[in-house]
Amino acid sequence: MGEFDLIRRFFLPLAQQRRDGTLVAGPGDDCAVQRLAPGTDLVFSIDTLVEGVHFPGHYPPEYLGWRALAVAVSDLAAMGADPLCYTLALTLPAATEDWLEGFASGLAKASDAFGIALAGGDTTRGPLTITLQVHGSVPAGAAITRSGARPGDLVCVSGTLGDAGEALNWLSCDEPGPQARAVLHSYHYPRPPLALGQALRGSASAGIDISDGLLADLAHILEASGVGAQLGADKLPLSEALLALHNRDKAVALALTSGDDYQLCVTIGPDSFQSLPEAVRIQLTVIGTVEAGAGIRLTGAPARLDAGYDHFREYS
Amino acid sequence: MGEFDLIRRFFLPLAQQRRDGTLVAGPGDDCAVQRLAPGTDLVFSIDTLVEGVHFPGHYPPEYLGWRALAVAVSDLAAMGADPLCYTLALTLPAATEDWLEGFASGLAKASDAFGIALAGGDTTRGPLTITLQVHGSVPAGAAITRSGARPGDLVCVSGTLGDAGEALNWLSCDEPGPQARAVLHSYHYPRPPLALGQALRGSASAGIDISDGLLADLAHILEASGVGAQLGADKLPLSEALLALHNRDKAVALALTSGDDYQLCVTIGPDSFQSLPEAVRIQLTVIGTVEAGAGIRLTGAPARLDAGYDHFREYS
Repeated sequence: MGEFDLIRRFFLPLAQQRRDGTLVAGPGDDCAVQRLAPGTDLVFSIDTLVEGVHFPGHYPPEYLGWRALAVAVSDLAAMGADPLCYTLALTLPAATEDWLEGFASGLAKASDAFGIALAGGDTTRGPLTITLQVHGSVPAGAAITRSGARPGDLVCVSGTLGDAGEALNWLSCDEPGPQARAVLHSYHYPRPPLALGQALRGSASAGIDISDGLLADLAHILEASGVGAQLGADKLPLSEALLALHNRDKAVALALTSGDDYQLCVTIGPDSFQSLPEAVRIQLTVIGTVEAGAGIRLTGAPARLDAGYDHFREYS
Repeated sequence: MGEFDLIRRFFLPLAQQRRDGTLVAGPGDDCAVQRLAPGTDLVFSIDTLVEGVHFPGHYPPEYLGWRALAVAVSDLAAMGADPLCYTLALTLPAATEDWLEGFASGLAKASDAFGIALAGGDTTRGPLTITLQVHGSVPAGAAITRSGARPGDLVCVSGTLGDAGEALNWLSCDEPGPQARAVLHSYHYPRPPLALGQALRGSASAGIDISDGLLADLAHILEASGVGAQLGADKLPLSEALLALHNRDKAVALALTSGDDYQLCVTIGPDSFQSLPEAVRIQLTVIGTVEAGAGIRLTGAPARLDAGYDHFREYS
């Protein structure tokens, strides 16, 4: 199958899906064209997934399609943006129809779930590598950045942490039990909390998505804001599945240091937190407080913790 | 070197360079933020270069930095867009300082030459693959697309054609002569005619950049516009260097079918063409006419021609 047939068959259908009003022209020309509503900012981010580094070899293509878009969309959630469209640069070793069908199917489901349309792309032959750029919008000036955390702000996270990290131990298991299946689902089908991010615009002082592990990602907020934080390890939200698979110390270590959860970590003033609608507030767990100074002061943590994830470390 | 050190040292300087007014926030957060002037459209395109497919193994990194941005910017030229910013997703096997210095240097020179700033990126470990997304703008509705060609329009190209294709024969030559050095320069340092593309907004009825070969790329315009064209092979602009290296038939064959020139092919009504400022008109060579029907009717061409470039064919 040549490049053009492949695009026509597998990817153009993704462009017709959920096409929103901002896309003046989608795939099929040298560039795509987008017209934003007046008074809005474009928010965009590019992310690459490499086989053997960000996902295992022979990873099922349907999971990969979902994950690739979820990982990228997670950056929009962190900024509080409304998703608009994405571009896909797909490098693959051979145009296997089975693989492409699975990948496009996962991508289509994720496009639907996250409300985002394919705007354009490039398909090339080479080692399996997937790069997506996502576009979103916020009212002008309203993007949630990493640099607004102030002493006294609460440190909050969404969802539960550590599940996707634990899933890495079960990827090759032929017959995982129900708890292992639950953490594997978190890994295969991450759901970045987009609506939560949007609801936190104007309230959160800073935000980031947890892709590399809570400690590593919170450290980015603290560094960008010139502050420190104290965290209570006993306050971390842990899933029942994770606590069934491990003792509490190991579960806490995973929640602090393992990546791939794609939940949000935000800071927010106590008054702003109390003013959040209850439906928003209950999606957040308060795990600590921003302090003057630098670094993270951790209470109640297990004695040994691994360092945060670095994309230059190979998959184990 | 870890991911963050690498970004700080080699890529953040590219972001400070030429930062324009539309970039509200550049690298360093989950997303970059861009605010377009009212009444403008965002024009964007993503492109991947894979080692061994789009450039040779062990290709000098400085050339690669330039080429990667030039290839991407070429799509903006085709739409008549003003360049704004780009994102870079770089996958590389090892963080070699020499390689990174060369690559960043080529990229910096191209950023300067094309007037475009780095807005964000992702750096990952894996087989050498470079994906760039470029952003540009046009007055709302003014992007030059592929679908506006009408019978009677002139078919024009910029620059000379075939040089980059010929360069492939000289990449491994230790001591190329002056003509070979000239075509090699066209290959290593393509210069998409951005200003020409912008000057053709409102005049050209359709446009495309010549990345895969004139016949293949013109065919995209004709298909999108529902028309055909006649081309005079004797009218193709050929460089002195190419004509010194080959007989005319071989030079014409390269000009028609080889890729990587990154010149423009546009269609334009005869009256609009005559109304172009002379400084713009002399950058174009009229090589044929759009006709009703479909396909390309070629006169004066050599008997044998290869098919157009397909990204799924390996580098020879």
